[in-house]
Amino acid sequence: MPYRHEIRIAWGDCDPAKIVYTARIPGFALDAINGWWEHHLGGGWFQMDLDRDLGTPFVHMALDFLAPMTPRHRLICEVAPTRLGETSIDWRVGGYQDGVHCFEGRFTCVFVKASVFAKEPPPAEIRALILGQIEAPAG
Amino acid sequence: MPYRHEIRIAWGDCDPAKIVYTARIPGFALDAINGWWEHHLGGGWFQMDLDRDLGTPFVHMALDFLAPMTPRHRLICEVAPTRLGETSIDWRVGGYQDGVHCFEGRFTCVFVKASVFAKEPPPAEIRALILGQIEAPAG
Amino acid sequence: MPYRHEIRIAWGDCDPAKIVYTARIPGFALDAINGWWEHHLGGGWFQMDLDRDLGTPFVHMALDFLAPMTPRHRLICEVAPTRLGETSIDWRVGGYQDGVHCFEGRFTCVFVKASVFAKEPPPAEIRALILGQIEAPAG
Amino acid sequence: MPYRHEIRIAWGDCDPAKIVYTARIPGFALDAINGWWEHHLGGGWFQMDLDRDLGTPFVHMALDFLAPMTPRHRLICEVAPTRLGETSIDWRVGGYQDGVHCFEGRFTCVFVKASVFAKEPPPAEIRALILGQIEAPAG
Repeated sequence: MPYRHEIRIAWGDCDPAKIVYTARIPGFALDAINGWWEHHLGGGWFQMDLDRDLGTPFVHMALDFLAPMTPRHRLICEVAPTRLGETSIDWRVGGYQDGVHCFEGRFTCVFVKASVFAKEPPPAEIRALILGQIEAPAG
Repeated sequence: MPYRHEIRIAWGDCDPAKIVYTARIPGFALDAINGWWEHHLGGGWFQMDLDRDLGTPFVHMALDFLAPMTPRHRLICEVAPTRLGETSIDWRVGGYQDGVHCFEGRFTCVFVKASVFAKEPPPAEIRALILGQIEAPAG
Repeated sequence: MPYRHEIRIAWGDCDPAKIVYTARIPGFALDAINGWWEHHLGGGWFQMDLDRDLGTPFVHMALDFLAPMTPRHRLICEVAPTRLGETSIDWRVGGYQDGVHCFEGRFTCVFVKASVFAKEPPPAEIRALILGQIEAPAG
Repeated sequence: MPYRHEIRIAWGDCDPAKIVYTARIPGFALDAINGWWEHHLGGGWFQMDLDRDLGTPFVHMALDFLAPMTPRHRLICEVAPTRLGETSIDWRVGGYQDGVHCFEGRFTCVFVKASVFAKEPPPAEIRALILGQIEAPAG
Protein backbone atom coordinates (compact mmCIF):
# COMPACT_ATOMS: atom_id res chain seq x y z
CA MET A 1 0.00 0.00 0.00
CA PRO A 2 1.45 3.39 -0.92
CA TYR A 3 1.56 6.25 1.59
CA ARG A 4 -1.64 8.29 1.52
CA HIS A 5 -1.40 12.03 2.16
CA GLU A 6 -4.55 14.00 2.93
CA ILE A 7 -4.91 17.63 1.82
CA ARG A 8 -7.73 20.00 2.72
CA ILE A 9 -8.68 21.89 -0.45
CA ALA A 10 -10.01 25.36 0.34
CA TRP A 11 -11.72 28.36 -1.25
CA GLY A 12 -8.39 30.10 -1.87
CA ASP A 13 -7.12 27.15 -3.94
CA CYS A 14 -9.95 27.68 -6.45
CA ASP A 15 -10.12 30.10 -9.35
CA PRO A 16 -13.10 31.89 -10.91
CA ALA A 17 -14.04 28.65 -12.73
CA LYS A 18 -14.89 27.35 -9.21
CA ILE A 19 -12.34 24.54 -9.42
CA VAL A 20 -8.80 24.19 -8.11
CA TYR A 21 -6.40 26.42 -10.07
CA THR A 22 -4.05 24.23 -12.12
CA ALA A 23 -0.88 25.83 -10.76
CA ARG A 24 -1.75 24.75 -7.20
CA ILE A 25 -1.70 21.05 -8.14
CA PRO A 26 2.07 20.55 -8.48
CA GLY A 27 2.35 22.10 -5.01
CA PHE A 28 -0.10 19.55 -3.61
CA ALA A 29 1.90 16.72 -5.19
CA LEU A 30 5.15 18.07 -3.74
CA ASP A 31 3.57 18.44 -0.29
CA ALA A 32 2.55 14.79 -0.60
CA ILE A 33 6.08 13.67 -1.50
CA ASN A 34 7.40 15.74 1.40
CA GLY A 35 4.81 13.96 3.57
CA TRP A 36 6.15 10.59 2.40
CA TRP A 37 9.60 11.54 3.72
CA GLU A 38 8.14 12.85 6.96
CA HIS A 39 6.19 9.63 7.43
CA HIS A 40 9.07 7.29 6.62
CA LEU A 41 12.10 9.27 7.83
CA GLY A 42 10.62 11.32 10.67
CA GLY A 43 11.22 14.61 8.86
CA GLY A 44 10.61 16.14 5.46
CA TRP A 45 12.83 18.21 3.16
CA PHE A 46 13.38 20.83 5.86
CA GLN A 47 14.85 18.37 8.34
CA MET A 48 16.70 16.49 5.58
CA ASP A 49 18.43 19.74 4.57
CA LEU A 50 19.19 21.14 8.01
CA ASP A 51 19.88 17.93 9.92
CA ARG A 52 21.37 15.65 7.24
CA ASP A 53 22.78 18.07 4.63
CA LEU A 54 20.70 16.14 2.08
CA GLY A 55 18.67 17.69 -0.71
CA THR A 56 16.52 16.18 -3.45
CA PRO A 57 15.91 18.91 -6.07
CA PHE A 58 13.46 18.17 -8.88
CA VAL A 59 14.71 17.80 -12.44
CA HIS A 60 11.43 16.73 -14.07
CA MET A 61 7.70 16.64 -13.50
CA ALA A 62 4.81 15.52 -15.70
CA LEU A 63 1.17 15.65 -14.71
CA ASP A 64 -2.09 14.60 -16.31
CA PHE A 65 -5.17 16.42 -15.06
CA LEU A 66 -8.03 13.94 -15.20
CA ALA A 67 -10.90 15.58 -13.33
CA PRO A 68 -11.47 18.99 -11.72
CA MET A 69 -11.09 19.28 -7.95
CA THR A 70 -13.10 21.34 -5.46
CA PRO A 71 -13.21 21.91 -1.67
CA ARG A 72 -16.20 19.51 -1.35
CA HIS A 73 -13.93 16.54 -0.60
CA ARG A 74 -10.50 16.00 0.91
CA LEU A 75 -7.76 15.35 -1.64
CA ILE A 76 -6.05 12.02 -1.03
CA CYS A 77 -2.61 11.73 -2.63
CA GLU A 78 -1.06 8.30 -3.05
CA VAL A 79 2.72 8.58 -3.11
CA ALA A 80 5.29 5.96 -3.99
CA PRO A 81 8.84 5.81 -5.31
CA THR A 82 8.90 3.93 -8.62
CA ARG A 83 12.63 3.77 -9.41
CA LEU A 84 15.87 4.37 -7.55
CA GLY A 85 19.03 5.17 -9.52
CA GLU A 86 22.55 5.83 -8.27
CA THR A 87 21.80 9.51 -7.56
CA SER A 88 18.17 9.90 -8.64
CA ILE A 89 14.68 8.81 -7.69
CA ASP A 90 11.34 8.68 -9.51
CA TRP A 91 8.03 9.26 -7.77
CA ARG A 92 4.42 8.66 -8.65
CA VAL A 93 1.70 10.76 -7.06
CA GLY A 94 -1.96 9.98 -7.75
CA GLY A 95 -4.61 12.44 -6.56
CA TYR A 96 -8.13 11.31 -5.64
CA GLN A 97 -11.27 13.06 -4.42
CA ASP A 98 -14.27 11.00 -3.31
CA GLY A 99 -12.85 8.00 -5.19
CA VAL A 100 -12.39 9.94 -8.45
CA HIS A 101 -8.89 9.92 -9.94
CA CYS A 102 -8.21 13.67 -10.40
CA PHE A 103 -4.56 13.80 -11.40
CA GLU A 104 -1.59 11.56 -11.92
CA GLY A 105 1.96 12.85 -11.68
CA ARG A 106 5.46 11.57 -12.29
CA PHE A 107 8.47 13.28 -10.75
CA THR A 108 12.25 12.83 -10.88
CA CYS A 109 14.58 14.16 -8.20
CA VAL A 110 18.33 13.95 -7.79
CA PHE A 111 20.15 13.52 -4.50
CA VAL A 112 22.57 16.30 -3.60
CA LYS A 113 24.80 17.25 -0.70
CA ALA A 114 22.73 20.27 0.25
CA SER A 115 25.53 22.57 1.43
CA VAL A 116 27.29 22.37 -1.93
CA PHE A 117 24.31 21.49 -4.17
CA ALA A 118 26.36 18.69 -5.79
CA LYS A 119 25.04 15.27 -6.81
CA GLU A 120 25.81 12.50 -4.35
CA PRO A 121 24.36 9.00 -3.78
CA PRO A 122 21.98 8.91 -0.81
CA PRO A 123 23.15 7.36 2.49
CA ALA A 124 22.76 3.55 2.74
CA GLU A 125 19.96 3.90 5.30
CA ILE A 126 17.88 6.02 2.92
CA ARG A 127 18.72 3.77 -0.03
CA ALA A 128 17.40 0.78 1.94
CA LEU A 129 14.28 2.65 3.03
CA ILE A 130 13.40 3.60 -0.55
CA LEU A 131 14.14 0.13 -1.98
CA GLY A 132 11.69 -1.33 0.53
CA GLN A 133 8.95 1.02 -0.72
CA ILE A 134 9.43 0.87 -4.50
CA GLU A 135 6.09 0.38 -6.20
CA ALA A 136 5.83 -2.43 -8.71
CA PRO A 137 4.66 -1.25 -12.15
CA ALA A 138 0.86 -1.39 -12.54
CA GLY A 139 -0.64 -4.00 -14.83
CA MET B 1 -12.87 26.07 23.97
CA PRO B 2 -12.20 27.65 20.58
CA TYR B 3 -12.01 25.56 17.41
CA ARG B 4 -8.46 24.30 16.79
CA HIS B 5 -7.27 23.99 13.19
CA GLU B 6 -4.12 22.00 12.43
CA ILE B 7 -1.84 23.01 9.54
CA ARG B 8 1.16 21.08 8.27
CA ILE B 9 3.95 23.59 7.63
CA ALA B 10 6.24 22.44 4.82
CA TRP B 11 9.54 23.27 3.14
CA GLY B 12 7.82 25.32 0.46
CA ASP B 13 6.27 27.62 3.09
CA CYS B 14 9.76 28.67 4.23
CA ASP B 15 12.05 31.30 2.78
CA PRO B 16 15.86 31.48 2.64
CA ALA B 17 15.88 32.58 6.31
CA LYS B 18 14.69 28.99 7.01
CA ILE B 19 11.46 30.18 8.63
CA VAL B 20 7.93 30.52 7.31
CA TYR B 21 7.66 33.41 4.85
CA THR B 22 5.55 36.20 6.40
CA ALA B 23 3.16 36.42 3.46
CA ARG B 24 2.06 32.80 3.97
CA ILE B 25 0.76 33.50 7.48
CA PRO B 26 -2.41 35.44 6.61
CA GLY B 27 -3.27 32.49 4.32
CA PHE B 28 -2.90 30.06 7.22
CA ALA B 29 -5.17 32.23 9.37
CA LEU B 30 -7.78 32.40 6.61
CA ASP B 31 -7.62 28.63 6.10
CA ALA B 32 -8.25 28.30 9.84
CA ILE B 33 -11.31 30.61 9.73
CA ASN B 34 -12.57 28.66 6.72
CA GLY B 35 -12.04 25.51 8.80
CA TRP B 36 -14.17 27.00 11.61
CA TRP B 37 -17.07 27.34 9.14
CA GLU B 38 -16.51 23.86 7.79
CA HIS B 39 -16.49 22.45 11.32
CA HIS B 40 -19.58 24.33 12.52
CA LEU B 41 -21.65 24.64 9.33
CA GLY B 42 -20.62 21.52 7.40
CA GLY B 43 -18.97 23.55 4.63
CA GLY B 44 -16.53 26.42 4.23
CA TRP B 45 -16.61 29.55 2.06
CA PHE B 46 -16.92 27.46 -1.12
CA GLN B 47 -20.13 25.76 0.00
CA MET B 48 -21.44 28.97 1.61
CA ASP B 49 -21.06 30.77 -1.73
CA LEU B 50 -22.34 28.06 -4.05
CA ASP B 51 -25.04 26.51 -1.84
CA ARG B 52 -26.25 29.47 0.26
CA ASP B 53 -25.37 32.54 -1.87
CA LEU B 54 -23.55 33.84 1.21
CA GLY B 55 -20.15 35.54 1.20
CA THR B 56 -18.02 36.99 3.99
CA PRO B 57 -15.36 39.20 2.35
CA PHE B 58 -12.63 40.64 4.56
CA VAL B 59 -12.48 44.37 5.22
CA HIS B 60 -9.65 44.36 7.76
CA MET B 61 -6.85 42.22 9.13
CA ALA B 62 -4.14 42.89 11.71
CA LEU B 63 -1.46 40.42 12.74
CA ASP B 64 1.35 40.41 15.26
CA PHE B 65 4.18 38.01 14.51
CA LEU B 66 5.50 36.80 17.84
CA ALA B 67 7.86 33.93 17.02
CA PRO B 68 9.20 32.39 13.82
CA MET B 69 7.60 29.17 12.55
CA THR B 70 9.21 26.15 10.90
CA PRO B 71 8.14 22.71 9.60
CA ARG B 72 9.40 21.03 12.80
CA HIS B 73 5.97 21.23 14.45
CA ARG B 74 2.38 21.33 13.31
CA LEU B 75 0.80 24.78 13.45
CA ILE B 76 -2.28 24.85 15.66
CA CYS B 77 -4.62 27.77 14.97
CA GLU B 78 -7.22 28.67 17.58
CA VAL B 79 -10.17 30.39 15.91
CA ALA B 80 -13.09 32.19 17.51
CA PRO B 81 -15.56 34.90 16.61
CA THR B 82 -15.19 37.82 19.02
CA ARG B 83 -18.01 40.16 17.94
CA LEU B 84 -21.11 39.91 15.76
CA GLY B 85 -22.60 43.08 14.30
CA GLU B 86 -25.66 43.53 12.11
CA THR B 87 -23.71 42.72 8.93
CA SER B 88 -20.18 42.12 10.18
CA ILE B 89 -18.14 39.70 12.25
CA ASP B 90 -14.78 39.89 14.02
CA TRP B 91 -12.46 36.91 14.37
CA ARG B 92 -9.44 36.10 16.46
CA VAL B 93 -6.89 33.57 15.22
CA GLY B 94 -3.99 32.57 17.45
CA GLY B 95 -1.20 30.45 15.98
CA TYR B 96 0.85 28.05 18.11
CA GLN B 97 3.73 25.66 17.45
CA ASP B 98 4.86 23.28 20.17
CA GLY B 99 3.11 25.45 22.77
CA VAL B 100 4.79 28.67 21.58
CA HIS B 101 2.48 31.54 20.61
CA CYS B 102 3.72 32.39 17.09
CA PHE B 103 1.16 34.88 15.82
CA GLU B 104 -2.06 36.55 16.82
CA GLY B 105 -4.47 37.93 14.27
CA ARG B 106 -7.68 39.95 14.26
CA PHE B 107 -9.97 39.96 11.25
CA THR B 108 -13.20 41.69 10.26
CA CYS B 109 -15.53 40.34 7.60
CA VAL B 110 -18.86 41.60 6.27
CA PHE B 111 -21.76 39.40 5.26
CA VAL B 112 -22.87 39.76 1.65
CA LYS B 113 -25.36 38.17 -0.68
CA ALA B 114 -22.70 36.54 -2.85
CA SER B 115 -24.45 36.79 -6.23
CA VAL B 116 -24.73 40.57 -5.96
CA PHE B 117 -21.83 41.25 -3.54
CA ALA B 118 -24.12 43.49 -1.44
CA LYS B 119 -24.14 43.70 2.36
CA GLU B 120 -26.91 41.70 4.02
CA PRO B 121 -27.44 40.42 7.58
CA PRO B 122 -26.64 36.71 7.87
CA PRO B 123 -29.52 34.17 8.09
CA ALA B 124 -30.94 33.61 11.61
CA GLU B 125 -29.46 30.11 11.77
CA ILE B 126 -25.96 31.43 11.18
CA ARG B 127 -26.51 34.35 13.56
CA ALA B 128 -27.46 31.88 16.30
CA LEU B 129 -24.51 29.62 15.55
CA ILE B 130 -22.04 32.51 15.82
CA LEU B 131 -23.62 33.96 18.97
CA GLY B 132 -23.18 30.58 20.66
CA GLN B 133 -19.46 30.61 19.86
CA ILE B 134 -18.49 34.22 20.64
CA GLU B 135 -15.34 34.26 22.73
CA ALA B 136 -15.41 36.30 25.93
CA PRO B 137 -12.66 38.93 26.06
CA ALA B 138 -9.48 37.63 27.70
CA GLY B 139 -8.61 38.87 31.17
CA MET C 1 9.84 35.63 -32.33
CA PRO C 2 7.82 34.15 -29.48
CA TYR C 3 6.13 36.36 -26.89
CA ARG C 4 8.46 37.14 -23.98
CA HIS C 5 6.93 37.48 -20.52
CA GLU C 6 8.98 39.04 -17.72
CA ILE C 7 8.58 37.88 -14.12
CA ARG C 8 10.17 39.45 -11.05
CA ILE C 9 11.42 36.60 -8.84
CA ALA C 10 11.37 37.57 -5.17
CA TRP C 11 12.51 36.38 -1.74
CA GLY C 12 9.16 34.74 -1.06
CA ASP C 13 9.50 32.54 -4.16
CA CYS C 14 12.64 30.95 -2.71
CA ASP C 15 12.96 28.11 -0.23
CA PRO C 16 15.61 27.40 2.41
CA ALA C 17 17.93 26.12 -0.34
CA LYS C 18 18.05 29.79 -1.45
CA ILE C 19 16.64 28.98 -4.89
CA VAL C 20 13.13 29.21 -6.32
CA TYR C 21 10.88 26.52 -4.83
CA THR C 22 9.98 24.00 -7.53
CA ALA C 23 6.23 24.25 -7.01
CA ARG C 24 6.29 27.98 -7.91
CA ILE C 25 7.61 27.27 -11.42
CA PRO C 26 4.43 25.85 -13.01
CA GLY C 27 2.70 29.00 -11.74
CA PHE C 28 5.26 31.19 -13.49
CA ALA C 29 4.74 29.25 -16.73
CA LEU C 30 0.96 29.60 -16.46
CA ASP C 31 1.26 33.33 -15.77
CA ALA C 32 3.37 33.54 -18.93
CA ILE C 33 0.76 31.69 -21.03
CA ASN C 34 -1.92 33.96 -19.56
CA GLY C 35 0.32 36.89 -20.56
CA TRP C 36 0.44 35.57 -24.14
CA TRP C 37 -3.37 35.76 -24.30
CA GLU C 38 -3.39 39.20 -22.74
CA HIS C 39 -0.81 40.40 -25.25
CA HIS C 40 -2.50 38.91 -28.31
CA LEU C 41 -6.19 39.07 -27.37
CA GLY C 42 -6.30 42.10 -25.07
CA GLY C 43 -7.26 40.02 -22.04
CA GLY C 44 -6.16 36.87 -20.27
CA TRP C 45 -8.12 33.90 -18.88
CA PHE C 46 -10.17 36.19 -16.63
CA GLN C 47 -11.52 38.24 -19.52
CA MET C 48 -11.83 35.16 -21.77
CA ASP C 49 -14.05 33.52 -19.13
CA LEU C 50 -16.17 36.50 -18.15
CA ASP C 51 -16.43 38.31 -21.50
CA ARG C 52 -16.31 35.43 -24.03
CA ASP C 53 -17.52 32.40 -22.03
CA LEU C 54 -14.32 30.67 -23.15
CA GLY C 55 -12.09 28.51 -20.95
CA THR C 56 -8.87 26.63 -21.65
CA PRO C 57 -8.35 24.15 -18.78
CA PHE C 58 -5.09 22.24 -18.66
CA VAL C 59 -5.05 18.50 -19.24
CA HIS C 60 -1.28 17.97 -19.22
CA MET C 61 1.97 19.62 -18.23
CA ALA C 62 5.57 18.43 -18.35
CA LEU C 63 8.56 20.45 -17.19
CA ASP C 64 12.29 19.94 -17.15
CA PHE C 65 14.18 21.95 -14.54
CA LEU C 66 17.56 22.78 -16.06
CA ALA C 67 19.12 25.32 -13.71
CA PRO C 68 18.16 26.84 -10.35
CA MET C 69 16.60 30.31 -10.34
CA THR C 70 17.09 33.17 -7.86
CA PRO C 71 15.91 36.79 -7.43
CA ARG C 72 19.21 38.08 -8.85
CA HIS C 73 17.81 38.28 -12.38
CA ARG C 74 14.41 38.75 -13.96
CA LEU C 75 12.87 35.55 -15.31
CA ILE C 76 12.11 35.80 -19.02
CA CYS C 77 9.55 33.28 -20.26
CA GLU C 78 9.29 32.61 -23.97
CA VAL C 79 5.78 31.41 -24.82
CA ALA C 80 4.49 29.96 -28.07
CA PRO C 81 1.70 27.66 -29.20
CA THR C 82 3.17 24.60 -30.91
CA ARG C 83 0.08 22.76 -32.12
CA LEU C 84 -3.61 23.54 -32.59
CA GLY C 85 -6.12 20.69 -32.67
CA GLU C 86 -9.87 20.81 -33.15
CA THR C 87 -10.49 21.51 -29.45
CA SER C 88 -6.98 21.53 -27.96
CA ILE C 89 -3.77 23.53 -27.99
CA ASP C 90 -0.18 22.77 -27.06
CA TRP C 91 2.15 25.38 -25.58
CA ARG C 92 5.86 25.64 -25.05
CA VAL C 93 7.25 27.85 -22.29
CA GLY C 94 11.00 28.31 -21.93
CA GLY C 95 12.33 30.09 -18.83
CA TYR C 96 15.59 32.05 -18.90
CA GLN C 97 17.56 34.05 -16.35
CA ASP C 98 20.56 36.10 -17.47
CA GLY C 99 20.71 34.05 -20.69
CA VAL C 100 20.70 30.70 -18.85
CA HIS C 101 17.96 28.25 -19.84
CA CYS C 102 16.38 27.43 -16.46
CA PHE C 103 13.32 25.39 -17.38
CA GLU C 104 11.43 24.14 -20.38
CA GLY C 105 7.76 23.24 -20.20
CA ARG C 106 5.13 21.70 -22.44
CA PHE C 107 1.44 22.18 -21.76
CA THR C 108 -1.82 20.98 -23.30
CA CYS C 109 -5.12 22.78 -22.83
CA VAL C 110 -8.59 22.08 -24.17
CA PHE C 111 -11.08 24.70 -25.25
CA VAL C 112 -14.37 24.70 -23.35
CA LYS C 113 -17.52 26.75 -23.21
CA ALA C 114 -16.81 28.10 -19.73
CA SER C 115 -20.40 28.28 -18.44
CA VAL C 116 -20.95 24.56 -19.02
CA PHE C 117 -17.32 23.36 -18.88
CA ALA C 118 -17.87 21.35 -22.10
CA LYS C 119 -15.36 20.95 -24.93
CA GLU C 120 -15.98 23.22 -27.90
CA PRO C 121 -13.80 24.37 -30.82
CA PRO C 122 -12.48 27.92 -30.30
CA PRO C 123 -14.07 30.80 -32.27
CA ALA C 124 -12.66 31.37 -35.79
CA GLU C 125 -10.98 34.62 -34.72
CA ILE C 126 -9.02 32.85 -32.01
CA ARG C 127 -8.24 29.91 -34.29
CA ALA C 128 -6.74 32.34 -36.81
CA LEU C 129 -4.78 34.20 -34.15
CA ILE C 130 -3.20 30.99 -32.86
CA LEU C 131 -2.43 29.61 -36.31
CA GLY C 132 -0.51 32.78 -37.07
CA GLN C 133 1.65 32.29 -34.00
CA ILE C 134 2.38 28.55 -34.12
CA GLU C 135 6.06 27.94 -33.53
CA ALA C 136 7.88 25.76 -36.04
CA PRO C 137 9.61 22.78 -34.43
CA ALA C 138 13.21 23.55 -33.42
CA GLY C 139 16.00 22.05 -35.49
CA MET D 1 6.74 60.90 -4.58
CA PRO D 2 6.67 57.37 -3.10
CA TYR D 3 8.05 54.42 -5.04
CA ARG D 4 5.39 52.85 -7.26
CA HIS D 5 5.47 49.08 -7.78
CA GLU D 6 3.43 47.53 -10.58
CA ILE D 7 1.92 44.05 -10.19
CA ARG D 8 0.14 42.05 -12.87
CA ILE D 9 -2.94 40.50 -11.28
CA ALA D 10 -3.87 37.21 -12.96
CA TRP D 11 -6.60 34.58 -13.08
CA GLY D 12 -4.83 32.43 -10.51
CA ASP D 13 -4.90 35.26 -7.95
CA CYS D 14 -8.71 35.26 -8.03
CA ASP D 15 -11.13 33.07 -6.14
CA PRO D 16 -14.60 31.80 -7.08
CA ALA D 17 -16.03 35.24 -6.18
CA LYS D 18 -14.11 36.43 -9.29
CA ILE D 19 -12.01 38.88 -7.27
CA VAL D 20 -8.50 38.65 -5.84
CA TYR D 21 -8.38 36.22 -2.90
CA THR D 22 -7.75 38.17 0.32
CA ALA D 23 -4.77 36.07 1.37
CA ARG D 24 -2.86 37.07 -1.79
CA ILE D 25 -2.92 40.77 -0.87
CA PRO D 26 -0.35 40.75 1.95
CA GLY D 27 1.97 38.99 -0.51
CA PHE D 28 1.49 41.78 -3.05
CA ALA D 29 2.28 44.38 -0.39
CA LEU D 30 5.42 42.50 0.65
CA ASP D 31 6.54 42.17 -2.97
CA ALA D 32 6.09 45.94 -3.23
CA ILE D 33 8.21 46.61 -0.13
CA ASN D 34 10.84 44.23 -1.49
CA GLY D 35 10.66 46.22 -4.75
CA TRP D 36 11.32 49.44 -2.80
CA TRP D 37 14.59 47.93 -1.51
CA GLU D 38 15.52 46.66 -4.95
CA HIS D 39 14.86 50.11 -6.44
CA HIS D 40 16.76 52.06 -3.77
CA LEU D 41 19.49 49.62 -2.74
CA GLY D 42 20.03 47.62 -5.95
CA GLY D 43 18.79 44.39 -4.40
CA GLY D 44 15.84 43.14 -2.37
CA TRP D 45 15.62 40.92 0.72
CA PHE D 46 17.47 38.10 -1.05
CA GLN D 47 20.55 40.20 -1.75
CA MET D 48 20.31 41.94 1.63
CA ASP D 49 20.42 38.54 3.35
CA LEU D 50 23.08 36.86 1.24
CA ASP D 51 25.32 39.84 0.48
CA ARG D 52 24.93 42.04 3.58
CA ASP D 53 23.86 39.59 6.33
CA LEU D 54 20.91 41.92 6.91
CA GLY D 55 17.32 40.82 7.52
CA THR D 56 14.13 42.77 8.17
CA PRO D 57 11.54 40.31 9.56
CA PHE D 58 7.99 41.54 10.05
CA VAL D 59 6.56 41.92 13.52
CA HIS D 60 3.24 43.52 12.58
CA MET D 61 0.92 44.11 9.66
CA ALA D 62 -2.50 45.73 9.40
CA LEU D 63 -4.51 46.06 6.20
CA ASP D 64 -7.81 47.63 5.25
CA PHE D 65 -9.44 46.20 2.15
CA LEU D 66 -11.28 49.07 0.48
CA ALA D 67 -12.34 47.74 -2.93
CA PRO D 68 -12.15 44.36 -4.68
CA MET D 69 -9.37 43.82 -7.23
CA THR D 70 -9.46 41.93 -10.54
CA PRO D 71 -7.09 41.18 -13.44
CA ARG D 72 -8.68 43.95 -15.53
CA HIS D 73 -6.11 46.52 -14.39
CA ARG D 74 -2.54 46.49 -13.18
CA LEU D 75 -2.17 46.89 -9.43
CA ILE D 76 -0.05 49.91 -8.54
CA CYS D 77 1.41 49.81 -5.03
CA GLU D 78 2.74 53.01 -3.50
CA VAL D 79 5.41 52.20 -0.92
CA ALA D 80 7.05 54.49 1.61
CA PRO D 81 8.75 54.21 4.97
CA THR D 82 6.84 56.25 7.55
CA ARG D 83 9.05 55.92 10.65
CA LEU D 84 12.58 54.76 11.43
CA GLY D 85 13.43 53.63 14.95
CA GLU D 86 16.73 52.42 16.37
CA THR D 87 16.15 48.85 15.14
CA SER D 88 12.74 49.04 13.47
CA ILE D 89 10.98 50.55 10.48
CA ASP D 90 7.36 51.23 9.59
CA TRP D 91 6.03 51.05 6.04
CA ARG D 92 2.90 52.20 4.30
CA VAL D 93 1.70 50.40 1.17
CA GLY D 94 -1.31 51.72 -0.72
CA GLY D 95 -2.78 49.60 -3.52
CA TYR D 96 -4.56 51.16 -6.52
CA GLN D 97 -6.27 49.81 -9.61
CA ASP D 98 -7.41 52.20 -12.34
CA GLY D 99 -7.22 55.07 -9.84
CA VAL D 100 -9.35 53.26 -7.22
CA HIS D 101 -7.81 52.87 -3.76
CA CYS D 102 -8.15 49.10 -3.19
CA PHE D 103 -6.18 48.52 0.01
CA GLU D 104 -4.04 50.34 2.53
CA GLY D 105 -1.50 48.54 4.65
CA ARG D 106 0.81 49.36 7.54
CA PHE D 107 3.79 47.17 8.34
CA THR D 108 6.51 47.09 11.00
CA CYS D 109 9.82 45.29 10.51
CA VAL D 110 12.85 44.96 12.73
CA PHE D 111 16.45 44.95 11.54
CA VAL D 112 18.42 41.81 12.35
CA LYS D 113 21.85 40.40 11.67
CA ALA D 114 20.55 37.64 9.40
CA SER D 115 23.07 34.93 10.29
CA VAL D 116 22.12 35.05 13.96
CA PHE D 117 18.58 36.47 13.66
CA ALA D 118 19.36 39.04 16.40
CA LYS D 119 18.21 42.65 16.45
CA GLU D 120 20.81 45.17 15.30
CA PRO D 121 20.61 48.78 14.10
CA PRO D 122 20.89 49.05 10.32
CA PRO D 123 24.18 50.24 8.75
CA ALA D 124 24.60 54.03 8.50
CA GLU D 125 24.26 53.94 4.71
CA ILE D 126 20.85 52.28 4.95
CA ARG D 127 19.78 54.54 7.81
CA ALA D 128 20.57 57.58 5.63
CA LEU D 129 18.77 56.11 2.63
CA ILE D 130 15.60 55.50 4.63
CA LEU D 131 15.65 58.88 6.37
CA GLY D 132 15.76 60.53 2.94
CA GLN D 133 12.61 58.69 1.90
CA ILE D 134 10.41 58.97 5.02
CA GLU D 135 6.94 60.02 4.05
CA ALA D 136 5.44 62.97 5.89
CA PRO D 137 2.12 62.17 7.55
CA ALA D 138 -0.85 62.89 5.29
CA GLY D 139 -3.01 65.89 6.04
